[in-house]
Amino acid sequence: MSVGIRPEVSPANRETQILAAAAREFAAKGYDASSMQDIANAVGISKATLYHYFKSKEELSNRLSNRTIEDMFGYVVHHSTSGSARTRLTNFMTAHARFFEENHAAFLSMILIRNPAAVDRGPDASLWRDRYEAHLRALLREGVRSGEFRGIDPVVTGRAILSCLNWMVRWFNPGGTQRAEDVARNYADLFLRGLEERS
Amino acid sequence: MSVGIRPEVSPANRETQILAAAAREFAAKGYDASSMQDIANAVGISKATLYHYFKSKEELSNRLSNRTIEDMFGYVVHHSTSGSARTRLTNFMTAHARFFEENHAAFLSMILIRNPAAVDRGPDASLWRDRYEAHLRALLREGVRSGEFRGIDPVVTGRAILSCLNWMVRWFNPGGTQRAEDVARNYADLFLRGLEERS
Repeated sequence: MSVGIRPEVSPANRETQILAAAAREFAAKGYDASSMQDIANAVGISKATLYHYFKSKEELSNRLSNRTIEDMFGYVVHHSTSGSARTRLTNFMTAHARFFEENHAAFLSMILIRNPAAVDRGPDASLWRDRYEAHLRALLREGVRSGEFRGIDPVVTGRAILSCLNWMVRWFNPGGTQRAEDVARNYADLFLRGLEERS
Repeated sequence: MSVGIRPEVSPANRETQILAAAAREFAAKGYDASSMQDIANAVGISKATLYHYFKSKEELSNRLSNRTIEDMFGYVVHHSTSGSARTRLTNFMTAHARFFEENHAAFLSMILIRNPAAVDRGPDASLWRDRYEAHLRALLREGVRSGEFRGIDPVVTGRAILSCLNWMVRWFNPGGTQRAEDVARNYADLFLRGLEERS
């Protein structure tokens, strides 16, 4: 390509580039400390061009959260729709962990942006998060109905499972020797079998 | 007390006042968005006086984290030293949740300050956190040794338990009708008994 001719980037691809760069900024520096100028610099566009795509940092971060939870929902549901309740639960947890590890900056941003000190993301991300939790609860209820699981509360249980998976943002290092899905598999075994020795 | 005479506040009490005010600021606005001026205003002292106690926001937040984890360690260990492994684990979890609810702003601050985007708190808080995790792991190992618990990995299990408890900062409302320790008791039952129906 000759010097002086800018390669064309479609608006959809440019938006994806911006979201990826914003995710890296938020993950590295936190939401408050990341400016629109930092994000524009990371993409290699002017701040004016960035504002053409997103009229504020809030709008950008909302779009990032919404897209991340929507992508995660599609990915995790796809991997946890067939098999026994035990298999589906294990696959739900390992798929969640794989998505987290493979989309680490976006996932971390989504969690940071949920920070009580940060912005309200509006109804879209909440809707997807509700659907995500509803999928897990339905899976648990089905296990109770089929007799695989004891009569647990699907709300309490779903929350405990998601807590373990989400808290991984605080300690799991995606560059390390351990894979996130192996951690999730250990957690699944713990939730399924419990601590107490069976008599 | 007559007008014009300032009530005397001992340095130790003043420090406690400052830490409580800082905790409320951090919990409400986040670490980055809280300034030393905001904290001084909340206590009703000058910024110069505040800097007499803490030479930076980092030093103040380190002291707050250290004191919170140290107090929590004392409280939770006190409540989980006697009884069967099942009882000790349940008491550990409910005491943790009570401490969290009763010291909500300080606990939330401690978690926010652990934010990867925030400061490194130095060795003290890490030391107390390590002791806290070590206490939980020892409790779990003892349950395995006595035959009450199956041969689980105390590192994985301890992490799962603390994840559930710590993630409560993200959704639990201390002003609501539900008590944090009741949530913790439900989680304890789940971890002890597991999901699978026993045959």
